Amino acid sequence: MAPRKQQEIFDATLRLVAEKGYDGLTVEGVAEHSGVNKTTIYRWWPSKAALLGAALVEADALGFEAPDTGSLRGDLVALVEGVRRLLTEPPSSDIAVAALAAAVRHPELDARRFFADRFAREREIFERAVRRGELKESVDPMLIVDLLAGAVWMRAVFRGLPVADDFPAAAVSALLDGLQRF
Amino acid sequence: MAPRKQQEIFDATLRLVAEKGYDGLTVEGVAEHSGVNKTTIYRWWPSKAALLGAALVEADALGFEAPDTGSLRGDLVALVEGVRRLLTEPPSSDIAVAALAAAVRHPELDARRFFADRFAREREIFERAVRRGELKESVDPMLIVDLLAGAVWMRAVFRGLPVADDFPAAAVSALLDGLQRF
Repeated sequence: MAPRKQQEIFDATLRLVAEKGYDGLTVEGVAEHSGVNKTTIYRWWPSKAALLGAALVEADALGFEAPDTGSLRGDLVALVEGVRRLLTEPPSSDIAVAALAAAVRHPELDARRFFADRFAREREIFERAVRRGELKESVDPMLIVDLLAGAVWMRAVFRGLPVADDFPAAAVSALLDGLQRF
Repeated sequence: MAPRKQQEIFDATLRLVAEKGYDGLTVEGVAEHSGVNKTTIYRWWPSKAALLGAALVEADALGFEAPDTGSLRGDLVALVEGVRRLLTEPPSSDIAVAALAAAVRHPELDARRFFADRFAREREIFERAVRRGELKESVDPMLIVDLLAGAVWMRAVFRGLPVADDFPAAAVSALLDGLQRF
């Protein structure tokens, strides 16, 4: 399938899941909105779970590149800013919340791929930081990502509270500088 | 209603949501499993969303007391241990995941109460740490809880990866000691 057509299918998939939730997402609806035959879509993705899983990872609309600002602090603040935008600005916030709810109820929608794919790219940030001598070698990069990204999920999605403009810098500072008084 | 009867209703509610998910939870089912008349349950909680919301906060089975180990580090490790158990050991892990998915799809199930109620108790940890001089006064306690609890959600629920035995100590150490090499 032509990459552009594929992106139109992913766009329709994400738009439908944002508007109607996973239960309202149908391959028929995606076919209608993308102008692609239903059987063609099924040839590429055997179920709506597979289609949404692919869209989450491969859609340009959710494209992710690891920030490269020249410092670990700058990269991590940019990373948290990105998660903040993803989880607070529509349509990506509606997509993320609908996909999360669906992944939890329908394990055949493999949301782990989304996080694994992002992490494969986030790794660069830590490799560069170690090369620059900014980071203790003993630190597990996935732990840092989970602390920072998890904090945005907690604040924005679970608590339903606003994520203040200074949240990314404050979260990164807590982690890089340490919290202890002595 | 007698407190003991109320706990039996909450137990039946949590058991049903863990087994059947939110869609399979019905006030009729709770009535049957707790031996309480359906109309009595409706008199106290006007909907299944209200019933589950109350059970999440008030059930002894999900009871939460802020740890008090004598040090900030000890308290935070115990806190993360508690979240790890909650999210990885059945039945609480099934309850948490089903409740999360339901809260995201049904805003009338107010999951914010669960997090707000816990945070009101977690505050003590930080008040004691400030009194002991262990914590920078500038640090926002909710930020610390969101970083630590969010990391367990990311690792256990979103990534679906095991949470290693040393995860709580490593997460707390990253945060208290800081990650920077210099």
